[in-house]
Amino acid sequence: MKQLKATLCTIGDELLIGQVINTNSAYLARLLEEEGIHVRRHISISDEPEDIISTLRSELQDCDIVITTGGLGPTKDDRTKQCLAEIFGCRGWKESSEQMKVIENILLRRGIPMLDINKAQALVPEAADVIVNTIGTAPIMAFHDKGKALYAMPGVPFEAEKAAADVIDDIRHHFDLHKQIFHRCIMTYGIAESSLSKKIEAWEDEITSQGVHLAYLPSHKDGVKLRLSIYDKEDPSLIDNAVRKLGQIIPQYIYNYNESTLAETLIDRLKEKGLRLAIAESCTGGYLSSLITAIPGVSEIYMGSVTSYANEVKRNVLGVSKEVTDKIGVVSAECVEQMAAGVAKALNADISIATSGYAGPTGTNVGQVWIGVALPGGRVESKEINVPKWNSRRLIIERSSAAALHFALSLLSK
Amino acid sequence: MKQLKATLCTIGDELLIGQVINTNSAYLARLLEEEGIHVRRHISISDEPEDIISTLRSELQDCDIVITTGGLGPTKDDRTKQCLAEIFGCRGWKESSEQMKVIENILLRRGIPMLDINKAQALVPEAADVIVNTIGTAPIMAFHDKGKALYAMPGVPFEAEKAAADVIDDIRHHFDLHKQIFHRCIMTYGIAESSLSKKIEAWEDEITSQGVHLAYLPSHKDGVKLRLSIYDKEDPSLIDNAVRKLGQIIPQYIYNYNESTLAETLIDRLKEKGLRLAIAESCTGGYLSSLITAIPGVSEIYMGSVTSYANEVKRNVLGVSKEVTDKIGVVSAECVEQMAAGVAKALNADISIATSGYAGPTGTNVGQVWIGVALPGGRVESKEINVPKWNSRRLIIERSSAAALHFALSLLSK
Repeated sequence: MKQLKATLCTIGDELLIGQVINTNSAYLARLLEEEGIHVRRHISISDEPEDIISTLRSELQDCDIVITTGGLGPTKDDRTKQCLAEIFGCRGWKESSEQMKVIENILLRRGIPMLDINKAQALVPEAADVIVNTIGTAPIMAFHDKGKALYAMPGVPFEAEKAAADVIDDIRHHFDLHKQIFHRCIMTYGIAESSLSKKIEAWEDEITSQGVHLAYLPSHKDGVKLRLSIYDKEDPSLIDNAVRKLGQIIPQYIYNYNESTLAETLIDRLKEKGLRLAIAESCTGGYLSSLITAIPGVSEIYMGSVTSYANEVKRNVLGVSKEVTDKIGVVSAECVEQMAAGVAKALNADISIATSGYAGPTGTNVGQVWIGVALPGGRVESKEINVPKWNSRRLIIERSSAAALHFALSLLSK
Repeated sequence: MKQLKATLCTIGDELLIGQVINTNSAYLARLLEEEGIHVRRHISISDEPEDIISTLRSELQDCDIVITTGGLGPTKDDRTKQCLAEIFGCRGWKESSEQMKVIENILLRRGIPMLDINKAQALVPEAADVIVNTIGTAPIMAFHDKGKALYAMPGVPFEAEKAAADVIDDIRHHFDLHKQIFHRCIMTYGIAESSLSKKIEAWEDEITSQGVHLAYLPSHKDGVKLRLSIYDKEDPSLIDNAVRKLGQIIPQYIYNYNESTLAETLIDRLKEKGLRLAIAESCTGGYLSSLITAIPGVSEIYMGSVTSYANEVKRNVLGVSKEVTDKIGVVSAECVEQMAAGVAKALNADISIATSGYAGPTGTNVGQVWIGVALPGGRVESKEINVPKWNSRRLIIERSSAAALHFALSLLSK
């Protein structure tokens, strides 16, 4: 079977001049790769019609599938739709009544009057098949021509993510894809991708020879995810056997044998054990708590958190001693241990996590972070981590939050 | 003077298949735009030599400057250097002794023996000018040919960011740069993109006819950003005049006359006024606090936050009454007002923000959120917002956090 090729094209000056980071292309690329479609290139271009038309024409020659995001807003600077009409030689336009209903509802809920530019969003070139965008005003358009397809979807990431699922469905319908793909993900933490690949080299060679595809998906938030895939005729039990063997080679690095974040894994373990969690944050500033509360249904075991940014809050709310804040220093084992014990007590939790460190961007000890965990029965543990200084403030916060979640998980497993 | 045009090309399968989000292009684009260089397109391609050679050749025809990132590692899958030798017709290679010293030092510090593949990293095609990479093993290469330039730099973001400064220096040295692009951003909140464009239609037509380019950059986190740009014009005061007029048309929607987030704007106002901030969160779960602490230097006025996820934490830590938690309900004006007053008292702050609502994904009132603000002098205000139900849990948290920040900002301005 022929390998399908795709190009992803993001349209909009805000990407070109670097005001916005392009996350849509990575998101779409992962979905297409999972369908066995080869993503050949990503291109970002301006809203200039000349650029749009010449780029899309040229990519349609080289690829089977072109997906564009962006340039579909109601305002004058968005001109993708006109360009698509020209590319596919459409003179006429048609209105999508279903999309018009969505537009009406969205405007109604927002208390905004319907203007001509809103109405115009329901219009598409007559060659387009409309995929209704139920969460935004711009319809998704599919153009099928000479065995190829072009999809135009909105650029706002949450609309694009929703649209992507519908586009993949349409691709499945119009192209002959691999019928069966099996994936399984194993979550590791605490080992760099390069060291991991060295450690599991022989295993990787063995499973590759059996037809199991392995991908390393590193993330500073949740460690290295290993994705095992099998296409078409191979026996899916090969994956389970491979996973079993891997569990014998690197058990110390695996925190979940299924796709899951560190926070989700921790919450699942706490629910199993019936333990209530509280968090005390200094340098992570609320981010660690937000990772926990991003998970639906967490209120069953999550009491809450205290962000003790000011030292007086560490003392007055969490009971950190004056000796620690004034003499020992707040980036210390003593401080996170007192914070952890204090928040567990104040919020009536069974287990708690605390962080205190230097997130930067300036200062001599940027990246030094202490994490503490208070366990049932009064035991308190702490650990120092050092995030390399070249990490941004945001990355130091994210990396130390990941380390704190993993520290709690590893203590719970003991 | 001719406007210089640039293409940014990232090389590597990990970007193409979506394992890694491309942040280098946005970073480089901002730097180039600041120099008045027009970034024409971003392209991401695979490590295949055929792709690399044909793409770079074609971009060198259309542009003055091409910058590549990635594909310079020591392993077999990185082949950019060989491709560059072919493109610039080099037969010979030369060793950069300065880069070799850096390589030796890096290996020494990591305790890794020097292998042939490490030594080879100091070799460059003889047509290349070497810019030493002092924090990594791969040298930056500059190729100057027929009035055009190609720069090849490493793909690791922190190395690329460092290399970018050196590349910009080299561009300044080789090209006649003038400040040809001016940007200014105005921040609005509380009005949809389409209504905004209707309200400022006449103004937009006027400034467009003067050569000022307008872009709408909507974000659910910080409202609609209006970006005004001027190309190839000598007089940047056109932008300032346009902004002044805009301030007369929609003053009620503008929260900052310069590029800034809601959180940054709030923090700046609080610093001006010398007011200390505290936050109490229920449905936003720590996210609102994390927006505040993402800003460097915030400890000057930020006391901290309490995430009162459990009702007993609302009562015991924040002093919310039993009547509210047990009878009135925690998604109410009464609750957020008591939370706001309670956290200001507990954390010794002058002003505070509180949130309580239904973030979903299940339940009948998903998207209903109350926000409260306690102001200096004991005044407490609250407001109900309703985020449409089709928003994900994450979006409901993000949108209601934005609304809470803006509510506090608008009360401070009164």
